[in-house]
Amino acid sequence: MNLKNIFLHATILVICFACGGAKKSDWQQQANGVWKYTIGEKSKINLLDAAGAVPNLARLDAGAATTFPLDKERIHITKSAHKIVIQLPLDDAEQIYGLGLQFKSVNRRGKTYHLKVDHYGGKDNGSTHAPVPFYLSSKGYGVLINSASYMTVYVGSSVRLDSKSKPAVYNRNTDKNWEAQPKSDVVEIVIPDGNAEIIVFNGETPLNTVRKYNLYQGGGVLPPKWGLGFTYRSHTRHTAEEVLAEVQEFEHNEFPLDFIGLEPGWMNMSYPSSYEWDEGRFPEPGKFVHTLLEQGVRTNLWMNPYIAPKAKLYEPMLPYAGTHLVWNGIVPDYTMDAARKIFLDFYTKNQLDIGVSGLKIDEVDGYDNWLWPDAATFPSGTSAEQMRQVYGLLMQKMVADLYHKSNQRTYGLVRASNAGAATLPFVLYNDYYDHRDFITALINSGFSGVLWTPEVRQSNKGEEWLRRMQSVCFSPMAMVNAWSSGTKPWSYPEVYEEVQQVAMLRMQLLPYIYSTFADYYFNGTPPVRPMQLVEGFGAKEEIKAGKLDDTANPYNLAIRKDIKDQFMFGDNLLVAPVFTGETSRTVILPQGKWYDFYTGEYAGENEVIEIRTALATIPLFVKDGGIIPMIGPRLHAPKPGEQLALQVRHYGKEGGSFLLYDDDGETFDYEKGDYSLTELSADPQVGSKGNEKRVEGSVFGYGSVTWKFMTE
Amino acid sequence: MNLKNIFLHATILVICFACGGAKKSDWQQQANGVWKYTIGEKSKINLLDAAGAVPNLARLDAGAATTFPLDKERIHITKSAHKIVIQLPLDDAEQIYGLGLQFKSVNRRGKTYHLKVDHYGGKDNGSTHAPVPFYLSSKGYGVLINSASYMTVYVGSSVRLDSKSKPAVYNRNTDKNWEAQPKSDVVEIVIPDGNAEIIVFNGETPLNTVRKYNLYQGGGVLPPKWGLGFTYRSHTRHTAEEVLAEVQEFEHNEFPLDFIGLEPGWMNMSYPSSYEWDEGRFPEPGKFVHTLLEQGVRTNLWMNPYIAPKAKLYEPMLPYAGTHLVWNGIVPDYTMDAARKIFLDFYTKNQLDIGVSGLKIDEVDGYDNWLWPDAATFPSGTSAEQMRQVYGLLMQKMVADLYHKSNQRTYGLVRASNAGAATLPFVLYNDYYDHRDFITALINSGFSGVLWTPEVRQSNKGEEWLRRMQSVCFSPMAMVNAWSSGTKPWSYPEVYEEVQQVAMLRMQLLPYIYSTFADYYFNGTPPVRPMQLVEGFGAKEEIKAGKLDDTANPYNLAIRKDIKDQFMFGDNLLVAPVFTGETSRTVILPQGKWYDFYTGEYAGENEVIEIRTALATIPLFVKDGGIIPMIGPRLHAPKPGEQLALQVRHYGKEGGSFLLYDDDGETFDYEKGDYSLTELSADPQVGSKGNEKRVEGSVFGYGSVTWKFMTE
Repeated sequence: MNLKNIFLHATILVICFACGGAKKSDWQQQANGVWKYTIGEKSKINLLDAAGAVPNLARLDAGAATTFPLDKERIHITKSAHKIVIQLPLDDAEQIYGLGLQFKSVNRRGKTYHLKVDHYGGKDNGSTHAPVPFYLSSKGYGVLINSASYMTVYVGSSVRLDSKSKPAVYNRNTDKNWEAQPKSDVVEIVIPDGNAEIIVFNGETPLNTVRKYNLYQGGGVLPPKWGLGFTYRSHTRHTAEEVLAEVQEFEHNEFPLDFIGLEPGWMNMSYPSSYEWDEGRFPEPGKFVHTLLEQGVRTNLWMNPYIAPKAKLYEPMLPYAGTHLVWNGIVPDYTMDAARKIFLDFYTKNQLDIGVSGLKIDEVDGYDNWLWPDAATFPSGTSAEQMRQVYGLLMQKMVADLYHKSNQRTYGLVRASNAGAATLPFVLYNDYYDHRDFITALINSGFSGVLWTPEVRQSNKGEEWLRRMQSVCFSPMAMVNAWSSGTKPWSYPEVYEEVQQVAMLRMQLLPYIYSTFADYYFNGTPPVRPMQLVEGFGAKEEIKAGKLDDTANPYNLAIRKDIKDQFMFGDNLLVAPVFTGETSRTVILPQGKWYDFYTGEYAGENEVIEIRTALATIPLFVKDGGIIPMIGPRLHAPKPGEQLALQVRHYGKEGGSFLLYDDDGETFDYEKGDYSLTELSADPQVGSKGNEKRVEGSVFGYGSVTWKFMTE
Repeated sequence: MNLKNIFLHATILVICFACGGAKKSDWQQQANGVWKYTIGEKSKINLLDAAGAVPNLARLDAGAATTFPLDKERIHITKSAHKIVIQLPLDDAEQIYGLGLQFKSVNRRGKTYHLKVDHYGGKDNGSTHAPVPFYLSSKGYGVLINSASYMTVYVGSSVRLDSKSKPAVYNRNTDKNWEAQPKSDVVEIVIPDGNAEIIVFNGETPLNTVRKYNLYQGGGVLPPKWGLGFTYRSHTRHTAEEVLAEVQEFEHNEFPLDFIGLEPGWMNMSYPSSYEWDEGRFPEPGKFVHTLLEQGVRTNLWMNPYIAPKAKLYEPMLPYAGTHLVWNGIVPDYTMDAARKIFLDFYTKNQLDIGVSGLKIDEVDGYDNWLWPDAATFPSGTSAEQMRQVYGLLMQKMVADLYHKSNQRTYGLVRASNAGAATLPFVLYNDYYDHRDFITALINSGFSGVLWTPEVRQSNKGEEWLRRMQSVCFSPMAMVNAWSSGTKPWSYPEVYEEVQQVAMLRMQLLPYIYSTFADYYFNGTPPVRPMQLVEGFGAKEEIKAGKLDDTANPYNLAIRKDIKDQFMFGDNLLVAPVFTGETSRTVILPQGKWYDFYTGEYAGENEVIEIRTALATIPLFVKDGGIIPMIGPRLHAPKPGEQLALQVRHYGKEGGSFLLYDDDGETFDYEKGDYSLTELSADPQVGSKGNEKRVEGSVFGYGSVTWKFMTE
């Protein structure tokens, strides 16, 4: 090839860029603050469709109108034989969050992510339980790639030769300004497929954009009240009798329990699975489930999707199975109506109809070593890779629809999810167990429309057990998982009182937590909120110079200090978990005055404070004017129609209000309007001692209301 | 979709498998024991072409004829829109090795590898410096996928529904025979591309198959003699004067030194690079290189491929650059003749012509965060992914060709390679630094036609320094890399005597090591040989039951004990490295009697021995009848024409022979026959006190030969 040819080739490329570039007319407005660009034909399968997401257009259109947030001249889309490349602008001071359930970092800028459903492997590289292709900018917009393909996202980690704002060039050997990671002005996304949708959200603030992203999926899930109580997963080899005895122990030890999980041992065959009750351990499943229900305890069942050759479901499902086995079980193609019907009919008869309240859907994330390979094919024509990206969504949706049809809410666990899952009643978990990283994942879940539980399994000592229990009680699912260890909440007697206390605090906070989830449902507001979503918090990222080391840091990389160990739980509670061995920690308090939850004392304002941490409690702060509705300590979530005494706390000096949500807590009747919204307000400055004002509806489970002013 | 459609669909799939299946006539025999199957059109770029591999047909055809080793009925190849899927049979007892430079394990069975050129990230998942798509079976055949695409290889980690030997099904909950990883009868390879070549090798034994694989690339590299001496990489900010002073120190401390490496500081600009000498530190590069040469020390220069905007090469190279920058430098498209010419002309004038002996080609492996992204395009049309897989090969080949043209051998370093590199005079290295894992990588290099050095940078204490120095002296490149630390061989005075001793032992062994490389060149025999290639060693894999742990081992995975801490260095030396803190270790001795290298004492036979390890020496064993030709201790490798006293050692009781190779050690004249092969033989049982018999040629640098019988 000679020089002339080269230039010709280069020209063709440039023209192609322009051809494939995003024309202004290609961006279709979907709702206020939501625009869609479709590349290629609409795909047979994508994330939002797999999740059954239906945008809540009314809520999306409710706010002030916003404009397309990106410079369209800086958007380029090219399609070649085997892939799509998307370039989106990135400004100098912009920080990027999201991209799903990562465990070690919050800020995504400067890194590369290979988004693939997988068990998290200890590195934030995009392989994880919910590799959600949605990113949020600190500038207040968000981008979703609605595609079920694996994809790679270069978040300002690639620098283009044609960039108009190329980074400065330094000589590494002599110039201390040299950077291992020169600043890039582009996010590049590579999709090894022929079609995809780009959906851009503009809520003008990061929080409002996340709300729009969640509302575009239909809004957040509203769990049943019992789902927000405490749950325990029993040892996998326990019998019905042993489980019943265990439930008695909870009662005896005065530890809350709303639902109990049975692990694989409830089946007569697992790995691969039968979904049939083990006659030895559970001779009368109907009676067993019913006995539990009478004690106010629901049953959740473990499952994974791989069906055993001897199972009754095997033959019927065989025509809808993929080409490969997982743990010797067939893999149903749940994109197909017929496959879903086979499973749901069986589940309805053997589990739902006897009163089972939900599922733990395990191992839909795969470890590379035992999920189906990319070589697999499925009868519907869905590729192995697409199936992997959506399998968790498909199963969640299938089960959620069944419970919806029977007008009872469910709330379970799932080990893989993706974009579109905000409405689905499942919480993510995994086998990893780093307490700090579990909190980082909790924070990241808030950017991505998924829920996460930092489940507690066992600990080396009481202190760690307590610290983990404190954290899990401020998460979407307060859970001990003793499937293998058999650990009980009281297994560390030296801290049992404190463990019981925090579990009871969770129960007392149910009105607050339930209203927080109602805000997720109605407005898309994430219940667990990263600090980066708090107004007035800003992107306070600290960059520290690195130390050259020929093995540990050969490129002298700067170290970025992420804010990843504190978060908002609902509007008013700032949670600052403490980790084993710590006797103090720093807390970053956003703008406005903040008060200690337990004492009502002033803690600080728009500053970093260092606090001494008592073993007994998890540090909680309430912002000025914050109102927290609570009930008395109890062992089970309120039942429908139960009337409770509401205790409302006010913190600080400012006036404030809180929208208290209530309904029957169990059914979907709220979708027909059977709920209530009550405004709780107080303003000590004008002498207001607290008011309740019904805003909407009449289903209200609180017989009396008492106000308590925590800061006098 | 109804049931009938499903079955129709399934039928179509089956028919497609048959359509796309490998017909017997599609396997084209390339040479004795080598067959090729081409999928799609021949690709514009593949690994063997990028490396410039030319099969050595004469040598390949020399041995006994072998037959196609796989059951063709069990080979299936399917091609769909975005990918190729290859299925190859795997028998029950078969073990699989290879797939490039992995660091933690040797046996590949039951695992999945995503083969991608990258800096090794601490997990054997296929992302590494040389993700060579060649695997070797313990049954004695090998398979190479000649494709420059990323690819995923499921080495018996996927189980097919249509398998004729499906694993037994157990109930995990109750049956202790349950396996987390059911046995698979298939290797599946997924290539996201439309074309590829499958090349099958059958040498009937693992070693002969590796030889065939290497010979198919043209045979192994024969380094210059000086390349097998000792090398030191000087601190990156050293000046010419400081480097010269350092060389004096080597002389003064009587430590061998054959070539010295200059790190980025020799350039006036690095990261991005200029390839221009820094006038401050190296005012007279020609004189500097010449002064070193006069002292018997050659110069090797660091480089990476990314050219700085201010460099003289920038403008000329710009038309041949990819769309993205790496460290602000352009990325030349070295698949193009014009780009190669620009670089080579510059290098010839500024480096080669003043006497520079070679290069260290850094950062062609990429870290995901600073290589070009998959979004990049290149003027030749080579995709970003293909470019990444072959970049290291392209640069090695370009430089190797230049030195070949000037009839002087080179021997350097490269951080990325791939299949096809056996003939290329470069040794792999990286920034990782685990001593044990470095040895595992050394072993794995022997399956994959690449060379690896467990380079020594620094240590916490003298013991570790010594243990690492002992290992590196039994590798393809004996090197200290002090680019950042400035460490010298004598930096740990408490072990200097022992360090000096092992470096001198390396120099004494040069006749043995050089002949070992000649065997690589002529016969493809890997100089560093995994035990799995030793005849009579077998696949002695130990499987130990796992221990269930809900975090560390939730699937109760069995643990496989790989043999990855001992290897053969040439035909006769078994090397058993010792790691810091160890005072003893086990050594697995293959069939036949084995003797201690240092004392000649009997050590054992076909057994596992436990040895006490002295700090002073690295354990070395010689097999019965083993002959080791040596020279006296010296500071530099022999010069052309130099006449040396050869000391030949014999070990054990049996008779044996060794083919001693010699030539001028510097030029390519051996390709025209200017070399000698001399058979050294002795048989104490018949009273033979040692014979030398010239087999071929006359270039022979040994003036006298003395025999020493180590086992009397």
